[in-house]
Amino acid sequence: MKISVVAIGDELLIGQVTDTNSGSIARIIEPGGWSIDNVQVVHDDAESITRAIETALSLTDIVITTGGLGPTKDDITKQVMCRYFGGTLEFDPSVLENVKEIFNRRGLRLNELTRSQAMVPTSCRVIQNRLGTAPIMWFEKNLPAEPENGTDSRRKILVAMPGVPFEAIGMFKSEVFPQLRAAFPDNNHIGHRNVILSGITESDAAERLDRWESALPQHLHLAYLPKQGIIRLRIDGRHTDAAFIESELDRAKSELVEIFGEKVLADDDLTPEQALIGILREKGMTFGSAESCTGGNIAHLITSVAGCSDVYRGSVVSYANEVKINLLDVSAADLERYGAVSEQVASQMAAGACRRLGTDCAVATSGIAGPGGGSEDKPVGTVCIAVATEQGSNVEVATFHFPGSRERVIDRASTTALTLLAMKLKLSN
Amino acid sequence: MKISVVAIGDELLIGQVTDTNSGSIARIIEPGGWSIDNVQVVHDDAESITRAIETALSLTDIVITTGGLGPTKDDITKQVMCRYFGGTLEFDPSVLENVKEIFNRRGLRLNELTRSQAMVPTSCRVIQNRLGTAPIMWFEKNLPAEPENGTDSRRKILVAMPGVPFEAIGMFKSEVFPQLRAAFPDNNHIGHRNVILSGITESDAAERLDRWESALPQHLHLAYLPKQGIIRLRIDGRHTDAAFIESELDRAKSELVEIFGEKVLADDDLTPEQALIGILREKGMTFGSAESCTGGNIAHLITSVAGCSDVYRGSVVSYANEVKINLLDVSAADLERYGAVSEQVASQMAAGACRRLGTDCAVATSGIAGPGGGSEDKPVGTVCIAVATEQGSNVEVATFHFPGSRERVIDRASTTALTLLAMKLKLSN
Repeated sequence: MKISVVAIGDELLIGQVTDTNSGSIARIIEPGGWSIDNVQVVHDDAESITRAIETALSLTDIVITTGGLGPTKDDITKQVMCRYFGGTLEFDPSVLENVKEIFNRRGLRLNELTRSQAMVPTSCRVIQNRLGTAPIMWFEKNLPAEPENGTDSRRKILVAMPGVPFEAIGMFKSEVFPQLRAAFPDNNHIGHRNVILSGITESDAAERLDRWESALPQHLHLAYLPKQGIIRLRIDGRHTDAAFIESELDRAKSELVEIFGEKVLADDDLTPEQALIGILREKGMTFGSAESCTGGNIAHLITSVAGCSDVYRGSVVSYANEVKINLLDVSAADLERYGAVSEQVASQMAAGACRRLGTDCAVATSGIAGPGGGSEDKPVGTVCIAVATEQGSNVEVATFHFPGSRERVIDRASTTALTLLAMKLKLSN
Repeated sequence: MKISVVAIGDELLIGQVTDTNSGSIARIIEPGGWSIDNVQVVHDDAESITRAIETALSLTDIVITTGGLGPTKDDITKQVMCRYFGGTLEFDPSVLENVKEIFNRRGLRLNELTRSQAMVPTSCRVIQNRLGTAPIMWFEKNLPAEPENGTDSRRKILVAMPGVPFEAIGMFKSEVFPQLRAAFPDNNHIGHRNVILSGITESDAAERLDRWESALPQHLHLAYLPKQGIIRLRIDGRHTDAAFIESELDRAKSELVEIFGEKVLADDDLTPEQALIGILREKGMTFGSAESCTGGNIAHLITSVAGCSDVYRGSVVSYANEVKINLLDVSAADLERYGAVSEQVASQMAAGACRRLGTDCAVATSGIAGPGGGSEDKPVGTVCIAVATEQGSNVEVATFHFPGSRERVIDRASTTALTLLAMKLKLSN
């Protein structure tokens, strides 16, 4: 099943906001065997929206629109939908109830403008938006068969969703997609397995897999998903016999784990931070971090995982040298002699983090994220990463050179630190 | 002048890569008074690309395509261009020279696949890509006048660019856009102003603005961009007289600042973290953070801003209570009596951060990000935020209830903490 996405909003076309909803929708529908055929990003005006919807409905039977549903004047999507699907805007008391509940929960006062969100086209079925005030609207149209063109009658569905990613994606996942799947049932059972690799390049992985991949049966498919030095191998299976495809997937996963041996970070769909938390939990160990150039991003990645508090104790983000000295016991003399971006300082930061945070293990980063601050000796992208285990008495350190923007250097350094600790603990069995 | 963008690539539609090129192009052309009319994201197949190009050329006289130009099999954009603009693929020695130079510079070996990049349609003019191996191709078509439809003859230009953002944006800025402007000289001057509001809902803002907005002259337009409790108001102006429109924009901005008074966080296009850094820099103050439920995200937001180190010293991410006690001097008795999520503990964390990090100001967060850990008394989303100034001797604290997922609670709490400190410093003049 293929769907079209129409992302509505001037802010998306002036480069102020990037459309991430379509990517999130793609990732949600993909395990169900669905995919996005096309995305159109259009201005918040009637002509653009109408044209985009017509194009989208001509290309796919399902269209998702995002955005253009707020209470302010520049949101005219509802009027366009009335023109396209018929009906008029009428007051829907259930929507007002939902808006009131959301406002109550947030401790806000309802005003006339917000009340206008309860006006919805009579031609749609409302799906209450539990996450915001803009109602989600499900429109349907049955196109008659055209025997002269050889087409059967077709059921066309358009779902108008809010633009705020939190609302759009939360509601798409929990309500809209399940209802769409029910509207277009499929006999195939679809399953997936994941194997996460670390410390191997994409081309080396492809070489090791060459023969195995060529021998894959029709009902299995392998995808490479490289990201920030990590390679995710995803095996997709599709068959009418659920038990058969599940056992086929298990077999294929075992084979991948065998082929890659000590390069396997996890044999499940985990991020590096989730993999690390799992390993620490299994070993009953605690963990902390000391961050200079990653500036709290390692802590942020770890604490984005719910329930991390049984293994994660905290981080010292030591942007200033005094903080490295006072809170991580880094030697002032070594800071002077080797500079903050040095293996010596990173090692002391990691050991200091274990001691000060009272943890079994820690990672530390010190580097130059850029765009300024680089030198011939230590160009932008240079990052020293230290991994401490055994309460800080065992420290390993290495220097990396990551390419790209400040954001990319921070991301790569964070992921690398987490992966280095995870692999070290994994192999220390 | 309006342009269309066609972003080509399967990876954009499966949620693996987000199209950021269109946003970057928008920001480059906008000061020149140009804007993007529409973006289409399509698969790397001939039918999708052809259809998208036809739509784009029907909507605007200039079309930029990005992606679909690599040396691998799935890149078929060049063949589509031949079909659409005529000509055949022929070898261009100047392109091979460029490819060789790029490969030499990167220390790579040329292979047959890469050599194929020198095959270009005879119908295009090549713009050498100094940043990569895929040539940039400029196609032109003159549509004849159609007197029966009342249209003049039109010059249509399509520029096919690579997809890699570094190449696409670098070359668009330095070569392609200047050549496009020369091809379509324009008399209009376009300008923008931004006013960022904090502590006011979108509907309340709209209500306050109702009369002002209705009275806006034709050459000015107002857009609302709400995000995480912050509202950005952007005024767009367009006129042939540059001095006139700039003074009109200044006037409109002053009026907005007057209307919203103490709700104005910044009168420029800034994120909350940029606004806070600017205020601190202006006052010559330093800043740190103590984070429990935000888990390092405040530090991450701040350190994502290049050059923050003159005002930002660091953060203590105190996920474990022992870290709150040992590194932030929180009273163990108060932790026991009031719990970690309490105004008492958040206040002590903020004051402790000032002391331990040696800063003038600090923010602290302690809350329940969820999804677990909530109670009747302190449901998920409860966050205590403390703001310390005067080296920790002045502390204000408040309890918030943020809706939504763990990620959203963390984001809202982080933004709120940064905004509270910024507003406090701003009003303490």
